Amino acid sequence: MTFEQSLTTTATLIEQRLDDLLSGARMAAVPQRLVDAMRHAVLGGGKRFRPFLVLETARMLGGDQGAAMTVAAALECVHCYSLVHDDLPAMDNDRLRRGVPTVWAAYDEWTAILAGDALLTLAFELLAEPSAHPDPVVRAALISSLARAAGAAGMVGGQIIDLEADKLGLPGKPTLDHIRRLQAMKTGALIVHAVEAGAIVAGALPEQRRACVRYSEALGLAFQISDDLLDAEGDAAVVGKAVAKDAAVGKATLVGLMGLEPARAKLAQTVGEAVDALAPFGASAETLVAAARFMSGRRS
Amino acid sequence: MTFEQSLTTTATLIEQRLDDLLSGARMAAVPQRLVDAMRHAVLGGGKRFRPFLVLETARMLGGDQGAAMTVAAALECVHCYSLVHDDLPAMDNDRLRRGVPTVWAAYDEWTAILAGDALLTLAFELLAEPSAHPDPVVRAALISSLARAAGAAGMVGGQIIDLEADKLGLPGKPTLDHIRRLQAMKTGALIVHAVEAGAIVAGALPEQRRACVRYSEALGLAFQISDDLLDAEGDAAVVGKAVAKDAAVGKATLVGLMGLEPARAKLAQTVGEAVDALAPFGASAETLVAAARFMSGRRS
Repeated sequence: MTFEQSLTTTATLIEQRLDDLLSGARMAAVPQRLVDAMRHAVLGGGKRFRPFLVLETARMLGGDQGAAMTVAAALECVHCYSLVHDDLPAMDNDRLRRGVPTVWAAYDEWTAILAGDALLTLAFELLAEPSAHPDPVVRAALISSLARAAGAAGMVGGQIIDLEADKLGLPGKPTLDHIRRLQAMKTGALIVHAVEAGAIVAGALPEQRRACVRYSEALGLAFQISDDLLDAEGDAAVVGKAVAKDAAVGKATLVGLMGLEPARAKLAQTVGEAVDALAPFGASAETLVAAARFMSGRRS
Repeated sequence: MTFEQSLTTTATLIEQRLDDLLSGARMAAVPQRLVDAMRHAVLGGGKRFRPFLVLETARMLGGDQGAAMTVAAALECVHCYSLVHDDLPAMDNDRLRRGVPTVWAAYDEWTAILAGDALLTLAFELLAEPSAHPDPVVRAALISSLARAAGAAGMVGGQIIDLEADKLGLPGKPTLDHIRRLQAMKTGALIVHAVEAGAIVAGALPEQRRACVRYSEALGLAFQISDDLLDAEGDAAVVGKAVAKDAAVGKATLVGLMGLEPARAKLAQTVGEAVDALAPFGASAETLVAAARFMSGRRS
């Protein structure tokens, strides 16, 4: 199976699991408007890249796929909550995502704020339950890892740095260090968590876990550079969203600061680092290796 | 020690713990603006009623006070996040809280949204750590309890019901059932969690835990009725905030629907139920009994 086939298969499975989670008994006592907004936020699309990383890392290390599915679904709830809040008028003010109205545009701001809050809370509810893993030590480790990745020193902190530069301006010109820190926190932390969570679920040894983290840090950076390159040189029809958007709004990106050719070279180097980190896992790392290589040739 | 002295003592301890949590190593990698906004949201006041309930329930049942402090601090982070989001222009649009600017008024909306998100995430980070309890089974139980109380079927769901009525209007006249459900979710769930968390930390037997939940459900209702009574008949100078605010905005309350005298009778009955639920704990329940009785005579 190619990486793209594997990603599509995972996306179908995770969509089904999220659909199940956001209906039935768990939602019985939840006001209908909130259920609808949460479903709008989570269902109906997305590459489900983070859940893929959880499932594939767990599979590589021989972990239980049922438990990994719960962990992957929890992580996707956090990713979706972050999009719901990012899209708000007070943040990025986006009315459309994947061609459909964002939650605040489809409902209103208060519903979107609360639906995001509810999804973040749901993620921790899921991870605390035995279906995430029979061993409570593992569940606590998963919760710690997610909270650190998603919180003030991770994703939320990265979002503050990004909006601070956008809305208040930086004291000087943005530096590569600034952009790297922003990227590592805002998008990198959750990608690292995805791979780490797969390793935790599978009961990876400390050494294996460190190799997974090295892979995921490189993968997160490659993902960001490839995203910037797509924006800088992609074809809007293929990418499926507006391109050259960063330059248009004067947003500092890795590609903008480094230049196209050095950015392509950095991407190739970073993909190489990601692939190298997986060497200890041999052939079982095939799909994760393909995921890293995919970043070099992304067209969407 | 009277209930009020005990509440003041707890408030001082919890303020110190929260101050420690929101500084030092844990905040080292957090952008300064976010640290400042989180501290603004959490420090400098509040009765700390929910932390009091955690600590006092744990004490009554012989639980470790150090662990209970961490659990109480986590709960207060959730309470404070909910206030930060509730105060937003898109929600209740409040510029002042306890005489100081709310987080969005002091900073801006995006900082307030993200500071709230970070505090909610921090609560789960704290509960997943061994300092919350050495036994990971207990930590998982605390996280489950908090997530259910704070999430879509609890506090966030109650907030949706409240805002839906305020902003979109109800199909008919509000009923007592509607107000009771709203109250039980919006404010009751976190009060029940506070008492339950104290019981979980102390390793309470199922029977003890059920008695604690009965107490906390009655206490939550008494708290709400006494709040409504204060608004309807309190002295603004003593209460410390505007009174008769509910009636002025046409907000349905238990007191408004029942009438003053029946509401006072209901309050007395509910306080009686709370006190009765604690009978199995004898003299060690003294302070929690006093907390319930306090609701009958609240003047602020």
